[in-house]
Amino acid sequence: MKRRDFLTTTALTATAMAVSGCHRAEEKSKEGTVNVNKAKKVTLKLATSWPAHFPIMGTGVDTFAKRCFELSGGSLEIKVFPKNILVPALQVFDSCSAAQIDAFHSGVYYWKGKNPAFSIFGGMPLGLTSEEMITWLKFGGGYELWREMYGKFNLYPLIGGTTGPQMGGWFKKEIHSLADLKGLKMRIPGLGGEVMKKLGVNPVLLPAGEIYTALERGTIDATEWVGPALDRMMGFDKAADYYYTGWHEPGSILEITFNKARWEKLSNEHRAIITAASEEMTGNMLQEFRYKNAKAFKELPSNVQIKTFPKDMMDAAKVALSEVLKEESKKSEDFKRVLKSYEAFYALNKPYDDISTKNFLEIRG
Amino acid sequence: MKRRDFLTTTALTATAMAVSGCHRAEEKSKEGTVNVNKAKKVTLKLATSWPAHFPIMGTGVDTFAKRCFELSGGSLEIKVFPKNILVPALQVFDSCSAAQIDAFHSGVYYWKGKNPAFSIFGGMPLGLTSEEMITWLKFGGGYELWREMYGKFNLYPLIGGTTGPQMGGWFKKEIHSLADLKGLKMRIPGLGGEVMKKLGVNPVLLPAGEIYTALERGTIDATEWVGPALDRMMGFDKAADYYYTGWHEPGSILEITFNKARWEKLSNEHRAIITAASEEMTGNMLQEFRYKNAKAFKELPSNVQIKTFPKDMMDAAKVALSEVLKEESKKSEDFKRVLKSYEAFYALNKPYDDISTKNFLEIRG
Repeated sequence: MKRRDFLTTTALTATAMAVSGCHRAEEKSKEGTVNVNKAKKVTLKLATSWPAHFPIMGTGVDTFAKRCFELSGGSLEIKVFPKNILVPALQVFDSCSAAQIDAFHSGVYYWKGKNPAFSIFGGMPLGLTSEEMITWLKFGGGYELWREMYGKFNLYPLIGGTTGPQMGGWFKKEIHSLADLKGLKMRIPGLGGEVMKKLGVNPVLLPAGEIYTALERGTIDATEWVGPALDRMMGFDKAADYYYTGWHEPGSILEITFNKARWEKLSNEHRAIITAASEEMTGNMLQEFRYKNAKAFKELPSNVQIKTFPKDMMDAAKVALSEVLKEESKKSEDFKRVLKSYEAFYALNKPYDDISTKNFLEIRG
Repeated sequence: MKRRDFLTTTALTATAMAVSGCHRAEEKSKEGTVNVNKAKKVTLKLATSWPAHFPIMGTGVDTFAKRCFELSGGSLEIKVFPKNILVPALQVFDSCSAAQIDAFHSGVYYWKGKNPAFSIFGGMPLGLTSEEMITWLKFGGGYELWREMYGKFNLYPLIGGTTGPQMGGWFKKEIHSLADLKGLKMRIPGLGGEVMKKLGVNPVLLPAGEIYTALERGTIDATEWVGPALDRMMGFDKAADYYYTGWHEPGSILEITFNKARWEKLSNEHRAIITAASEEMTGNMLQEFRYKNAKAFKELPSNVQIKTFPKDMMDAAKVALSEVLKEESKKSEDFKRVLKSYEAFYALNKPYDDISTKNFLEIRG
């Protein structure tokens, strides 16, 4: 509250209690309110797992924070901290759980060490697309499970964007059949990495900053990343010629997650604003990925050859995935529960998607 | 402003000018604000082209209005009027243009009589899917053209939801080849109807309430509508056995459109709130259509046979569509301009979509 805003009448002090929380508008030229008359200003600290203003994902959350401020007429300020400023990129979950930060923006699959079930909320190889994942979360029971399980860590998650179908990755040599994968060193995390391991690949984890050099020097034979727009920024098209279509991340979900106790202390208005702004971010991010990927794909240099993995490999991947899911289900009751919900939605959605979206894309040619 | 809120101090009258627009919170137990301290309350009248609480489309706009109220802490009230209460369903465009109502929720393709170009903003046969349409509007220049052309009618449009791929419609007899279309009476509006006409169909326009009886009695041979969820409500599965997959409305866009002068008089905050709430509505509606269509599809009665139109018909439809587009372009400079923008985005998007979404759906099996 700015005291000077009230210094227009001598009677002010007497009524200060009555108008508690009010201050005069700074902009009142139009009807409605801008930065006007909000009671108590709330400031939240949000840490991300991305570098500052990282394209699409980082700029998406910058815009989200700006929108929260606009939508609330300035009463809700979310301060965005890129990775390693307040907390290291992969400690945002723990820090938020411990209420050292109020919120974070990250990828769900990073936290499978906390609970194997969490990886499913981030997406599944050979599974649901982005639009289907969001439908499962909202209408198929996914959100309830996610919130119940994050609740045990004092966290409240919201969908914080999605990438659309990711590419299968960059390979220095062409893959003609399943046998060609044997002994290949590939940077690939998550459930996709587990599946690749069963197919003979040696999955490697590397910090983002080291992947290009490793690929260029042949320390690794292949790497996956995201899609043309972000992959080109990494320079992978200069280190490998074969760019494979995707199968292992058809609809990865990002999260914007709040400390649960902090979330519950927010007003209904601020919670509604955060939710609507996160929905807006999710749509915008998916569309921005589509647009920028299409542009970057068109501009790929001529050495790059687009390839699809051989059928024997994809058939083996489906078998390997079902083995991985069985193993994880045996190890974790939560994984089993979430998988059951996911698979029920998959079974409901697939027959209709086959005759609507998939069929249409085939008819379109 | 509720006068009683101020009657807590005798000094109030003296400071009424200073706190103009402020009133005490009715709910202040949590930090932040709910229904608190907003300056001037704005009430807008929004008319729709749907019956009251019509599933998905009508309930979607009901929720949109509720969200605007929540997000604004009660300072933005949008009153939703179903069709024919304030204005007839298909006069919402004119009424809003003339500032008799503040806003409307409808389908863009209804207004092609105003300007043939408008039909493209609503979607195109054999063209872009919902996600692609929205990407074109936001990132490919579509919104700029839409707003420029609606601006001439004193209107400001926003995307107000989307249906996902619609079905091809219900037929009393199976279509084995293009020749079977000859002389068929079908209820099908818009560009799809124009294409069907060139294929020998006799397109018929009927009010929604008369379609079932016409189909059941054989006055018409076929009808399209939306998809399984809404089609079943119309009872079409009781009047026809052959349910065809879609081609003519792969990504229909609904609109939530404001009187432009009224829009410009709104505060930045209220404009941001309406925009975010419309984005939220658009995502939710697409996902709700997906979920409810998948459920309704699963529950179709056993007489219903799912069919795909024969290849010679779809090949002929592509030729007929390009003829229709050429004819419209000759008649209207605006149509030509919008088509050019649409086709540029289509050409950019298609190669990448083919190797990402389409390719993935094929790999998934």
